Amino acid sequence: MEEKLITPRKLQGFWELMPREQRCFSSLLAKIEDVFKTNCFVPLDTPVLEYSEVLLAKSGGETDKEVYRFTKGSTDMCMRYDFTVPLARFVSMHKDELSFPFKRYQIGKVYRGEKPQKGRYREFYQCDADIIGNGELSFVADAECIRLLEKCFEALNLDVEVRVSSRKILTGYIEEIGKTNVMTDILIVLDKLDKLPAEESARQLKELGLTEKEQKNITSLIQTTGQIDDVIQKLSKLSKNATFVEGLENLKEVDGYLKQMGSKNVIYDLSIIRGHNYYTSIVFEGFFAGRKDMGAIAGGGRFDNLCGYFTDKKMPGVGMSVGITRLFSHLMQENYFDLEDQNEIDCAVINFDETLGQSLALVEDLRKCGVNAEIFYENKTFKSKMKEANRRQVKYVVIVGEDEVKSKRYMLKNMQTSEQSQMTLEEIVNVIKK
Amino acid sequence: MEEKLITPRKLQGFWELMPREQRCFSSLLAKIEDVFKTNCFVPLDTPVLEYSEVLLAKSGGETDKEVYRFTKGSTDMCMRYDFTVPLARFVSMHKDELSFPFKRYQIGKVYRGEKPQKGRYREFYQCDADIIGNGELSFVADAECIRLLEKCFEALNLDVEVRVSSRKILTGYIEEIGKTNVMTDILIVLDKLDKLPAEESARQLKELGLTEKEQKNITSLIQTTGQIDDVIQKLSKLSKNATFVEGLENLKEVDGYLKQMGSKNVIYDLSIIRGHNYYTSIVFEGFFAGRKDMGAIAGGGRFDNLCGYFTDKKMPGVGMSVGITRLFSHLMQENYFDLEDQNEIDCAVINFDETLGQSLALVEDLRKCGVNAEIFYENKTFKSKMKEANRRQVKYVVIVGEDEVKSKRYMLKNMQTSEQSQMTLEEIVNVIKK
Repeated sequence: MEEKLITPRKLQGFWELMPREQRCFSSLLAKIEDVFKTNCFVPLDTPVLEYSEVLLAKSGGETDKEVYRFTKGSTDMCMRYDFTVPLARFVSMHKDELSFPFKRYQIGKVYRGEKPQKGRYREFYQCDADIIGNGELSFVADAECIRLLEKCFEALNLDVEVRVSSRKILTGYIEEIGKTNVMTDILIVLDKLDKLPAEESARQLKELGLTEKEQKNITSLIQTTGQIDDVIQKLSKLSKNATFVEGLENLKEVDGYLKQMGSKNVIYDLSIIRGHNYYTSIVFEGFFAGRKDMGAIAGGGRFDNLCGYFTDKKMPGVGMSVGITRLFSHLMQENYFDLEDQNEIDCAVINFDETLGQSLALVEDLRKCGVNAEIFYENKTFKSKMKEANRRQVKYVVIVGEDEVKSKRYMLKNMQTSEQSQMTLEEIVNVIKK
Repeated sequence: MEEKLITPRKLQGFWELMPREQRCFSSLLAKIEDVFKTNCFVPLDTPVLEYSEVLLAKSGGETDKEVYRFTKGSTDMCMRYDFTVPLARFVSMHKDELSFPFKRYQIGKVYRGEKPQKGRYREFYQCDADIIGNGELSFVADAECIRLLEKCFEALNLDVEVRVSSRKILTGYIEEIGKTNVMTDILIVLDKLDKLPAEESARQLKELGLTEKEQKNITSLIQTTGQIDDVIQKLSKLSKNATFVEGLENLKEVDGYLKQMGSKNVIYDLSIIRGHNYYTSIVFEGFFAGRKDMGAIAGGGRFDNLCGYFTDKKMPGVGMSVGITRLFSHLMQENYFDLEDQNEIDCAVINFDETLGQSLALVEDLRKCGVNAEIFYENKTFKSKMKEANRRQVKYVVIVGEDEVKSKRYMLKNMQTSEQSQMTLEEIVNVIKK
């Protein structure tokens, strides 16, 4: 009864690494997690699935077409598309048990059924850290998240620049010119300013009712970039609107904290808007230093009321997120990782038929000493075992013949230099760990 | 425009820990991952979603009602319910690039829409390690997986016993008595022997056509337990069937390797069958020592042909899996973890209004030295900051007044002993890290 074979296929747009790449990726995650921990963020690991009612609260239960949504039995559920809504759900459920400001991180996979394209995946990792306040939240928290972004990149030895703005400056100006009713539309046009031809964005702004002067002003506003004093000097004359002024003051305050915290890579840049409309104040994005053209690889901002769909309590928050899947792809291209350094085997024990038992014991002894030792029990001859060690780029082999078993001194061979000499277990461990 | 609030709810049967518990759980995972790495298993992180055709290959595309299956666009997909089928899919796709025996581990969440009940979750973690051969696979691999199970528990300082059998002994005996046609039914009855009254299982075996003598023999066979020589002595007279004899020989061979590997916790126990019908030879389960009644907390076995649905190539495998979610729940009940030791804050910096800036800088300096330092910027008064440090069970606080800023000697207070003295940053780090 021959069964028909099924073609083994992975879903399109789903990420899967080969083992050595996986080891590199895991090392990135571990370094970022360390930064989060040192900065006193606590881990959270919410479920991948949530009630659709909860996850889609913002859109009144409407499904965004990107979301993986389905029913099982009578339960309508979704796979998470970010960590922010699950965080809001968690904080709302446990607000009486948590300490505020609640600083949590979450590292894991999120799901978006977008059209797969270069650098975009349907399942991908996110590294998020957020600070949630109860009632109010100092701008120290914003500085902390910006500094945290810098620290993640410092931990990876990567040069970063963080571009910071406050949405209040823009929204204040739009209020001032009496265009509050088309606020979101204007922000959408402005967010795409560097992707559209100048005439096209001018046309769209005109259509939204902006005069030529207003267009010019708002375009000049959004092109403002520099150190804090330059930005404030340039902008403070533009408007006396209270929101606008508050935005500038918030930037100034955050900059003060950042300087105390030792931040050196911040640039103020009014073009930073960030698509998500839940941001209400400070927003920021991280770029490879001098490479804004490559797009942001991390970002974040402040939202005035994280849990508004779930509770009457006002809970402002500020958070940052590293697009780790995208970052990893880029680092792979740049040969950031030494793949040869990712060998899972530190040392192979090469046995003869008659020394299999003692060799198994030696492998265990090496592992007990923290050496990732392996034995090639599928390769039958000495020659094929040595060939396997070569093929797998193992740096050290330990050869175990009957004499070695008797003397408890084994032949350690460095496969790169071909040097070899007889040593005790302890000596072998010292050489390999060096 | 007041919006209606949505009740924040988590899906029933989905696991979610509070931060301190999460830190404990992560520490378990990290210890097990370390064991896998030291034993030269490589990491794999397959997608949570797979094509239904692939994931349900075994059942010819039929959905088991436990599986989360849905379509998006025209794609029919499932959430993984274990790591074994995704492993088979991965190995079949990449068999020409991988080194065999291919030793991989995967730690992550799997999904089963079972009725939620105590200790059973719909989303739970599994820690799997498997060894896949290309064509053939030595019984050294079985010993390695059994030993690996022991090592996971050794790493957690838990006493374990591993009960080992070979399904060939049972299936050989069933062949011998001419009941091959009802093999699976007999195995199902035998697998539940300790859950059913003796008369009930006798009745079921009779119904399957076993004579009273055969019932007695098979019940006695399955109750055989002990060290290898006792088991072989007791059973070798029972049958000359080739499969039966092979099963006994396999056990003997595995036992030899296990002894060389330093295993001390293995008991041979013919009642170990394991439900999954893909196991074909060696099977084993791990229990808390002396607590078989509590049920297995880990297990595994050998399957003759892992990838049979995807490729003509014969790929035998042997694997083990730790039911980490269940293990964790048990350890929590037993107060295995010191939750007070899970504080995310090593040290709180207590500032006055006028020293906020310098205190932020000091927090950064402490973090740079690897101390998880925190500052309570939401608490306005000195008193409320100290209260917060107490409430959060912080062990050390550093008090930063203007004099301290000038002298760069800060007041370190041990909150448990109330001892305090002025110290430099370096001295503070040394005390806290001690």
